[in-house]
Amino acid sequence: MINIPASAVPTKDNKTIVVFSGDLDKAMAAFIIANGAAAMGKKVTMFFTFWGLNILRKPEPVPVTKGLMDKLFGFMMPKGSKELNLSQMNMLGIGGKMMRWIMKNKNVSSLEELIQAALASGIEIVACQMSMEVMGLQPKELLDGIKFGGVGYYLNEAEDSNVNLFI
Amino acid sequence: MINIPASAVPTKDNKTIVVFSGDLDKAMAAFIIANGAAAMGKKVTMFFTFWGLNILRKPEPVPVTKGLMDKLFGFMMPKGSKELNLSQMNMLGIGGKMMRWIMKNKNVSSLEELIQAALASGIEIVACQMSMEVMGLQPKELLDGIKFGGVGYYLNEAEDSNVNLFI
Amino acid sequence: MINIPASAVPTKDNKTIVVFSGDLDKAMAAFIIANGAAAMGKKVTMFFTFWGLNILRKPEPVPVTKGLMDKLFGFMMPKGSKELNLSQMNMLGIGGKMMRWIMKNKNVSSLEELIQAALASGIEIVACQMSMEVMGLQPKELLDGIKFGGVGYYLNEAEDSNVNLFI
Repeated sequence: MINIPASAVPTKDNKTIVVFSGDLDKAMAAFIIANGAAAMGKKVTMFFTFWGLNILRKPEPVPVTKGLMDKLFGFMMPKGSKELNLSQMNMLGIGGKMMRWIMKNKNVSSLEELIQAALASGIEIVACQMSMEVMGLQPKELLDGIKFGGVGYYLNEAEDSNVNLFI
Repeated sequence: MINIPASAVPTKDNKTIVVFSGDLDKAMAAFIIANGAAAMGKKVTMFFTFWGLNILRKPEPVPVTKGLMDKLFGFMMPKGSKELNLSQMNMLGIGGKMMRWIMKNKNVSSLEELIQAALASGIEIVACQMSMEVMGLQPKELLDGIKFGGVGYYLNEAEDSNVNLFI
Repeated sequence: MINIPASAVPTKDNKTIVVFSGDLDKAMAAFIIANGAAAMGKKVTMFFTFWGLNILRKPEPVPVTKGLMDKLFGFMMPKGSKELNLSQMNMLGIGGKMMRWIMKNKNVSSLEELIQAALASGIEIVACQMSMEVMGLQPKELLDGIKFGGVGYYLNEAEDSNVNLFI
């Protein structure tokens, strides 16, 4: 007979990534890890919160009715993956452009390709509802094919995962 | 008979969060996740190190005897949760004030309320002793009701946890 | 009879740390945690990617043949652990020097000592091959005694670990 304490829960092997940061380089790292895990057959959930939501914004204008403060916030923040900055050596945007140019030259997937690959391979992309509320973002302003949930949703997914990262 | 290798340790389901960052937004994310997990009945340990210690500083002056360098460091760093900056769009502190104003308007708990809730619900808040030594902070300068420990303490808690984040 | 679902994988207790950041303070935190876990007898893998690779650069000039863009990138980035900045309060490098001076005064190991201790205790230090390609870094420009691998290598190590951090 094996004596397993009540608190001993054998772990499932899903993966979760909280994407808090809205930096180009950190977003790429998050999607490269997520896509790698999906390629190994694992269930992956990415939970986008705070600045990370900007990665999911549609680049084109979306007609929405908003209060003044929400409009201002939406105007000041990067509008989608193409407007993101680097976390280091950004140099007013030149660093990000350089990084993208180099990656293209060396045949590394762009952030946009990584996002599309993630959606295509069934990675669960979840936008944090509380952050959307704070930043005044509405569901139709974010990419199609994503889900919406709160911290409880994230924690439930993390419970079934053996790799949980905060980026 | 089930053959479980010696190295296979069924995981307990506690949670740990290393709070390295002293940014307002990252501190909020840390406490929202911690409080969420505590609400689900999990044991949560938050380990505050480096800049994260500033979140735990008492806002009022505390009479302590310090060397010159420790005094200087203490003077330069944010004195408690109300003086923290945003990790992005801080704009010399305006961003932080805006974020706090918006959150209040939208009935999101303030960082101070999140900290009090964490302490009230039994979340273990541990200040890293080595970082305190480096930054010249003394126990009575930090919030009441917290613990003090080293990296070994953190690692032991992480051993019993299935979610371990570094923020 | 114990009914364990097919997806329930008892976790091994290795540790992994993705070192994405190239900041002095975050690098120290990563190595302090890694060395602490190694001292507890755990297998630790540190996976250096993006800016984290700069921590591993040899400080002395290494004769290599490079294209113009790779040379430029190599010139702009910190050349090894001694040139790293702080993530906060860097003040054009003064903050980093102050932090090092304080740590020395208080008998805290320097980053260079932490790295040497990590290598000596058998911690696996892995440089991300894709990031090396993007940043134009060649193996002999990085510290001796390290390994090279991709995201798949990292994910396999994480699969056998119960603590996985992203720094």
